[in-house]
Order: sequence, then structure tokens, then C-alpha cells
Amino acid sequence: MKEADFLSALRALPLHVGARGLADDTATLGELVLTKDLIAEGVHFLSADPPGDVAWKLVAVNLSDLAAKGATPEGLLLGYPLGDDAWDRAFLTGLDAVLRHFDCPLLGGDTITLPPGTPRMLSLTALGRSGAVPVRGGARAGDALYVTGTIGDAGAGLVLAQTGGQGPLVDRYRRPTPRLAEGRALAPLVHAMMDVSDGLLIDAQRMAAASGLAVTIDLDLVSLSVAYRAWPGADPLHAATAGDDYELLFAGPADLPLPVDATRIGRFAEGRGLTLTQDGQTLPLPDRLGFEHAAPGAP
Amino acid sequence: MKEADFLSALRALPLHVGARGLADDTATLGELVLTKDLIAEGVHFLSADPPGDVAWKLVAVNLSDLAAKGATPEGLLLGYPLGDDAWDRAFLTGLDAVLRHFDCPLLGGDTITLPPGTPRMLSLTALGRSGAVPVRGGARAGDALYVTGTIGDAGAGLVLAQTGGQGPLVDRYRRPTPRLAEGRALAPLVHAMMDVSDGLLIDAQRMAAASGLAVTIDLDLVSLSVAYRAWPGADPLHAATAGDDYELLFAGPADLPLPVDATRIGRFAEGRGLTLTQDGQTLPLPDRLGFEHAAPGAP
Repeated sequence: MKEADFLSALRALPLHVGARGLADDTATLGELVLTKDLIAEGVHFLSADPPGDVAWKLVAVNLSDLAAKGATPEGLLLGYPLGDDAWDRAFLTGLDAVLRHFDCPLLGGDTITLPPGTPRMLSLTALGRSGAVPVRGGARAGDALYVTGTIGDAGAGLVLAQTGGQGPLVDRYRRPTPRLAEGRALAPLVHAMMDVSDGLLIDAQRMAAASGLAVTIDLDLVSLSVAYRAWPGADPLHAATAGDDYELLFAGPADLPLPVDATRIGRFAEGRGLTLTQDGQTLPLPDRLGFEHAAPGAP
Repeated sequence: MKEADFLSALRALPLHVGARGLADDTATLGELVLTKDLIAEGVHFLSADPPGDVAWKLVAVNLSDLAAKGATPEGLLLGYPLGDDAWDRAFLTGLDAVLRHFDCPLLGGDTITLPPGTPRMLSLTALGRSGAVPVRGGARAGDALYVTGTIGDAGAGLVLAQTGGQGPLVDRYRRPTPRLAEGRALAPLVHAMMDVSDGLLIDAQRMAAASGLAVTIDLDLVSLSVAYRAWPGADPLHAATAGDDYELLFAGPADLPLPVDATRIGRFAEGRGLTLTQDGQTLPLPDRLGFEHAAPGAP
């Protein structure tokens, strides 16, 4: 099944009130924020990626969901497929580093032995605490759309990593930084917030859809890093659809005083759908707005 | 790496106080009890198992960990690999049934798309609430060892399922029942409690080791079901090492008035290790006490 169809079907099952209709990347339980993100070899990371970087990414993508809810990490539950000694030891070294870096201890987990040759699939559940949890669907007509940091670096890094490249773009692909401090600063101020994991355009479209609104993004305003602009494949449309950015996308008043490094890139209005502009012109939407989870061969 | 070595290495990482040194199957956060169990095709379930039964087992094995801590289920986070439509739909139907049966709603989760042909690996995080959380390592010298229900049914069911068999033993393999009510009744009374997932002997040995004690089990006292005893392969040693029972194993005073269906099968004493007796004689320990998670080809 496609992810969207599977999610729709899940919504017909008994849901906890803290699931908030499965409309968000996280659940809430009192002041606790909960998220669970899986990453798989060949899908979210490359077989040749250093195991320590895989550990980093696994933790970072989960903490990014907490960041989008203004949460401070509390602890993690790890689901780990045991493999060869060298890989496991390098993973543990990387896990130690990322736990210390983000001051997030391990709460527990489970290990498993997969049949030989099975691609690795890692699972993490992250818990955090937040006083003010912004929802994905809280944008209001007239709100501006903002995003922290720069977009596209990780997408370029993936292209480079596939041919053995190194450098700051590859680092952003392999070792993303969840915007935890930014999320905490923004959470009390914004109307809606989510992280950019699947691509700026697709995630903005999801925020608009969840808010029952239309959104327009001005591609000229999307902030690109110096390293990205120096990359031969640089293209704002690639940057805005590549995903893996783990920046925070948020909606708020057009005159919001920004407490963090962020850029105003668009606006919400009554209606529905995504409009893309560049040089004052409306662009045709690309076929692919970002990464969509669908079963191989699914229609 | 072997599971035990991986766990030892994890213990050197930053741990949450609620992880309690990773000595248990669950973590605690205030009155919340958290657990995460993975199941994989070809390891914990058979490729031919009905998808609805896989959903049942995934939920049941996690709720069994909560049961061992006297917890009432609060909610679940599902990690799911999207596959073919028919399998996914049948899984959802089974998931709906098991959520309703155990009155445990969904809190959230994540879906993933695996490369074609990859064996399914499913992940679940379960949260519950408990006022009194028994630890695994709380047995005292002089305590008796007890276990709820009957042992070995699921092990026989697995053997039967592998050749297309059906019936009550196969049902116990495919649709285990977490002892939630029993766990809540026992939690305030016992000194130590855990569920029997990997095998009665190996799990009893783990409880003894965690408690710093020796344990003796009288194989004659292990309760076998009528269906198990009628199975041609019936053998108390097979029953005690097969695993997948999801009964509750607990330590308490020898004269504990039992509020649930349970059997006294052994005793704890100063010392270490597991002793097995039958007909008043000490038995040599079998090579295999139960299911141990080790990487394929690991030493």
C-alpha cells in the first residue's frame, strides 16, 4: 500500500487521543512528546555509509521530530538488528557520540537477529518534554511560511556520497543537525511547525493541507548555503525537493520577530494546494515534490 | 555481535535513570512503563503465517512485557514496512482486532518502504501505566519461583505450524495472550517478575543472575496443558526451553497466596546458576536453555 492509504486505514483503528488523528509526526501524552522513525539500508542510508554516521542519522531524524514540537529530548528506545562485529562496534561508537552530543540518554530497546543478507532496518523511539506543542495543521490564512537554515545541502550530499564524495554537503547528509534549540525558541510563537524531512515543497504542501489552506512559496527566497551554490548540480528546485534537510518549517504572523536563523519563504491563504513562484512568475509544479513512501511497484 | 555483548556495550553509553541499567525488558518514566519489541519474518514468525496473526503477535509480545510490570496498556507506536496491498490490508484487520481485544489504542508510528524481497521486520513501542513495577532482579534467597499458566504450548505450535498444522497449540504460537490481568494482580505481591519469551529455563536463569542468586527448577512441577501432553513430541524439557510462552515468571515468598492461576516450580538460594531436577534427581543441563539472540555466524 501507499503510505497515505495505510495512514488512512490506520485512522479507522482505535486511536489514542494523544495520536491527534495521526495528523502529525509525533504523539503527545501529557507533556511528553513521542516519535518513532525507522531508517533502512538502501533507502535512508547507503550500504557504504560509515556505521557511526548511521547511528547519528537515526538519532538525529528522531530528535528533529521532537525539535519541531519544541521538545527537550528525554530518552530513546533503540530497535537494532545485530550484525557483524565490526559494524556493530562502529555503530556503538557513533551512538555514544550522538547521545552525548545531544544530551539524550538511552532508555531501552530490543535487539534482533535478521536472516543473513537482509538489509539493515533500524528503529528508534524518542521521547521528549514540551510545554507548548505546535501542530502541523495550525497555519492561518495570512500567515507567512518560514524555514530555518539552508535547504538542499543534504540532497546534494547524497548525490556526492553516491560517488564517494566528501565535504560539508556530505556531512549534512550523513550527520544532520536537529534544530532543538530553534524549536524550543519557536514553539511558543508559531501557529504550526514541522521538520523538513521529505522535501521542502512536499512538506509545505502537507502543512497547508493539514491546515486546510493554500500555500505559495517563492523559490527565490529559499536560502541556499555557500557550499550548495558552489556545487555544480545546484538548482533551487532540486534543493526544494531533495529532502533530508531536517530544518524547521513553520507558520506564523508575517511580522513575527524571528528569534532564530530563519527565512520567510511564502504565505498561506484561503484555498488549497501549493503554488510555486520564481522571478515573479508562477512555475509549473515539478512531477516530484519530495520523497513519498510507497511500496515498490505500488500504483 | 551477540546480544549479551551488545547489551554490555550499551551499558557503557549514556543511560537514562529509567533504563535501570538495561537490566530489564522495560524502562520506566514516572508511572509510565515503556517497552520496544521487534519481530522479523523467518525469525519470530513464518512467511506463511496469516498477516492478522503477525499483527496479533507483534502487539501481544509487547503487551506481555507490560504485563510483567503490572502495567495497564496506554498506547502503541508502530513501525511498519509497507508491502503488497493484500498483506497490508490483512495486517490492518488483525491490528484492529488486537487493539480492540486488549483495549490499547494506537499513538503513532512510522512506515517505511523496504527494498523488494526484504524479509519483513516490524517494530512496536508499547507504553503502559503501573503503580508498582517489579524488577527482574528482585528475587531473594528462600523465595519460591512461580509461573502462570502452562508452558510449551507455543513451542509445540511452532513445530506444528511449520508443517501446516492447526489447532490450539498453533493458536498459542500465533496468538499469544499477554497476562495483563495476572500481572496487575501479582505486581504488588512479588519480589521479581518477567515474562517467559525465550524459554522457561533461560528466562529463569536470567532472573536468578539478575538477582545474584541460584535457582533450582523441578521439571516435574512445570504445568503442561492437556493439548501439549497429547502432542506426540511432548517432552517437559522441550516445553521448558522452547519459548514464546508469554506466561509470567515471578519470585515471591514460598507461602504466597496466589491470586491467579500459577504454579510453584522452583526456589532461589544463595549462589549462582541454574539447577534442574526431575524425579528427585539432578539433571544435566541441556545445551540449549532457550532462544538466544546472536548474529548469524557469531561465535
